Amino acid sequence: MSHHALVTPPTAPVLNETIRTQLAHRTIRAYTPEPLGEDVVETLLEVARHGATSSFQQQVTVIRVLDPAVRAALHASSGQPYVGGSNGELFVFVVDLHRNAVLRERAGVDLEPLERTTLFLQGVEDTIIAAQNVVVAAESLGLGTTYLGSILTDVRSVITALGLPERTFPLVGMLVGHPAQEPQYKPRLPREIMSAVDRYPELTEHLEALADYDTTVRDYYDLRAANTRVDSFSEQIARMLGKGGASMMPLSEVLHEQRLCLS
Amino acid sequence: MSHHALVTPPTAPVLNETIRTQLAHRTIRAYTPEPLGEDVVETLLEVARHGATSSFQQQVTVIRVLDPAVRAALHASSGQPYVGGSNGELFVFVVDLHRNAVLRERAGVDLEPLERTTLFLQGVEDTIIAAQNVVVAAESLGLGTTYLGSILTDVRSVITALGLPERTFPLVGMLVGHPAQEPQYKPRLPREIMSAVDRYPELTEHLEALADYDTTVRDYYDLRAANTRVDSFSEQIARMLGKGGASMMPLSEVLHEQRLCLS
Repeated sequence: MSHHALVTPPTAPVLNETIRTQLAHRTIRAYTPEPLGEDVVETLLEVARHGATSSFQQQVTVIRVLDPAVRAALHASSGQPYVGGSNGELFVFVVDLHRNAVLRERAGVDLEPLERTTLFLQGVEDTIIAAQNVVVAAESLGLGTTYLGSILTDVRSVITALGLPERTFPLVGMLVGHPAQEPQYKPRLPREIMSAVDRYPELTEHLEALADYDTTVRDYYDLRAANTRVDSFSEQIARMLGKGGASMMPLSEVLHEQRLCLS
Repeated sequence: MSHHALVTPPTAPVLNETIRTQLAHRTIRAYTPEPLGEDVVETLLEVARHGATSSFQQQVTVIRVLDPAVRAALHASSGQPYVGGSNGELFVFVVDLHRNAVLRERAGVDLEPLERTTLFLQGVEDTIIAAQNVVVAAESLGLGTTYLGSILTDVRSVITALGLPERTFPLVGMLVGHPAQEPQYKPRLPREIMSAVDRYPELTEHLEALADYDTTVRDYYDLRAANTRVDSFSEQIARMLGKGGASMMPLSEVLHEQRLCLS
């Protein structure tokens, strides 16, 4: 795999500006101090609102973080240095079943359906649809983004900092800003491993493609470890999975505390 | 709320082709017989692969359904008439922790981290990011889409039809095709209800905006019930939530059968 292939965006048979934007996705973790501007922030929130929503339940709320104390709480939970400071707008995408609970209480009907795993997953879907819409819109404007799954590491402190009631869950944070870095395009698993026709594609039938991919990943130089050879994909999954703080926490406990996923 | 406002796409302060596409999102449930073409299908799969992925775990697999027998199984589970027949390409977005389990088995390390709720949620995020990327790309090409959460109604039959192993879960289906209908833009909850700064926005502080929105939704004419007045949002959430088959099923049982979300 040549170095060239890693600095050229991936391509596809049919291209337009939107698809070029999507194929050129890279996580951006460093931003200039330049603010987004209120027009852009408003636009991103509009795009978040207008994604698909499961059964029209609209189980998502987006919280923009401006208060440095709230940002500090998110920074502390995430442990990621780039969440600190003030570069990049910080948003939190909250799975929100509380709002519909209020509507049901006002109508005098039971709240039990909201405690089901199905409804929570529908809320997660609404939430990520909104978040990914923001990513694509921001990138179409030349901005950079990073998802912050890391805010779950100490999720109870995030719940407190944002004043989140029962039946809500701060699924992901997101930074959006003007890029101050130019990372390489991180190679993805080959299409024949990640997709298939009619039937699940067993990895063991694609070991040659996997070996090629492992080599490709080793040649990808992660900006966070400048010019250091990284592990292959297989090595990363074997060594790193479950080592992070967020992964160590029994999240089901927190979900149950929030009265989510009870059945 | 004028009828006009419901047939004009929503707008935002900053517009480009991508953002216009996103704001103009509508669910399309009827398609012409015209196929997408292999170039478009390949492009959609490329866009699915290149979204963000939590901790580079790439826990998603996309299955394209061509076999009429597999499609019939998905149709039966979903109960949605438009899943039947052959109009529209049908995809299933699968949360996939099995692939990384194979990698860990090959490396001789334990599989326990993959059984945590955290890892499953990261897989759900990867899966919906991929799916939403497909929606935006398809719509940018003038195509229509619909998410099929309904395939969960009889999810065990879907798992069987697609040959899904343990540690996988068919989260959503999706139809993509050439639109054969022109639905209105479905009004979303007001921005002050769905978003806020620094702190969770309690619905009870926005009851006036809610009342306006309820009126707006009553004026939205759903194509599926042609020219019939629909319930307000508040009424829909009070009356309809939890009535569907998918909502009645204890999904946590199926997730545990699949060795997902065990802690």
